[in-house]
Amino acid sequence: MLNLHSSSPDRWFAHVREHVDELLIDHAHCEKKAAGTAMNLLFAYVENQALCREMTEIVREELEHFHLVLELLCQRNIRWRRIKPSEYGRKLNDLVRREEPHKAVDRLLVAGIIEARSCERFGILRDQLPDAELAKFYDSLFESEARHHSTYVRLAKDFAPEETIRTRLAELAAAEAQIIAAGEALPRMHS
Amino acid sequence: MLNLHSSSPDRWFAHVREHVDELLIDHAHCEKKAAGTAMNLLFAYVENQALCREMTEIVREELEHFHLVLELLCQRNIRWRRIKPSEYGRKLNDLVRREEPHKAVDRLLVAGIIEARSCERFGILRDQLPDAELAKFYDSLFESEARHHSTYVRLAKDFAPEETIRTRLAELAAAEAQIIAAGEALPRMHS
Repeated sequence: MLNLHSSSPDRWFAHVREHVDELLIDHAHCEKKAAGTAMNLLFAYVENQALCREMTEIVREELEHFHLVLELLCQRNIRWRRIKPSEYGRKLNDLVRREEPHKAVDRLLVAGIIEARSCERFGILRDQLPDAELAKFYDSLFESEARHHSTYVRLAKDFAPEETIRTRLAELAAAEAQIIAAGEALPRMHS
Repeated sequence: MLNLHSSSPDRWFAHVREHVDELLIDHAHCEKKAAGTAMNLLFAYVENQALCREMTEIVREELEHFHLVLELLCQRNIRWRRIKPSEYGRKLNDLVRREEPHKAVDRLLVAGIIEARSCERFGILRDQLPDAELAKFYDSLFESEARHHSTYVRLAKDFAPEETIRTRLAELAAAEAQIIAAGEALPRMHS
């Protein structure tokens, strides 16, 4: 359903479970970035009304999640602040082709893959975090990430035939699996 | 209440009343840009939680208005499309100082002044448009523009003392009145 080409390596959870405060801060920034991505897509393809409608809904939901994570930080006395982001988003965005309509296809599919990976990782956090409140929190966010993934893939089909989308999604998902396999030094949602 | 230094010249309404379709298209783009401005401010000052909360609410409302205008276009069989924007926003943004915290003050006050001018013009459209449905529509949007104006001015006070804000708001409002007095050739919400 999520079109990912790999499961997260065990070392990811082993790493972030030791840095839950930092993971939560990064998570809040990820929700903010997800809202920003949807807004940028609305601006870029503003004449596509179906896309505008879906992006509006995603902006709304991601900002809502952003504030839910901020509340959690506040309850736990974790200081909300800027932190160095993971390289994951930048590496994926480097794969976006420059010319339209390929650019639209790639932007939407990359956004969809990020939602898919978030979903997979929220599932791991839900199933494996010993902190029951956090496990429940990640359970509550799981469904929307899966839904956003489907929305992005569906919208990409406005810009190219279904078969083309399927092929490109597989290419990008394979590249994403390599980025995940390489890993990162900082404990992040997408490290 | 709106801190504007001038009322719109009569020639503005005389011009746009002859180009209501184009005005509505421009209005939709203005709502989109207002949502984008609030999102950009959230990104720029993300550690300021009060600001993030207000910007989230403004993003949500502006996108809602954006879709209301799109619906109106659809009902009236007006083709939704990109059109050349007015120069108003760019001219105002050119007045924003480059260094913080002046930059934050100016970005917030400029956003607030744009909301104030929109509010004033929605009032003119409400009072003078012969089309009852449109008059009612502009009446329904009037209050939120006035409220957003107050929100932006209030948030600016997080970045400088109240007296400094008052002085700078007066400077920017004077510059805005000059931009409005100069006018523009295309019929736009802020021409």
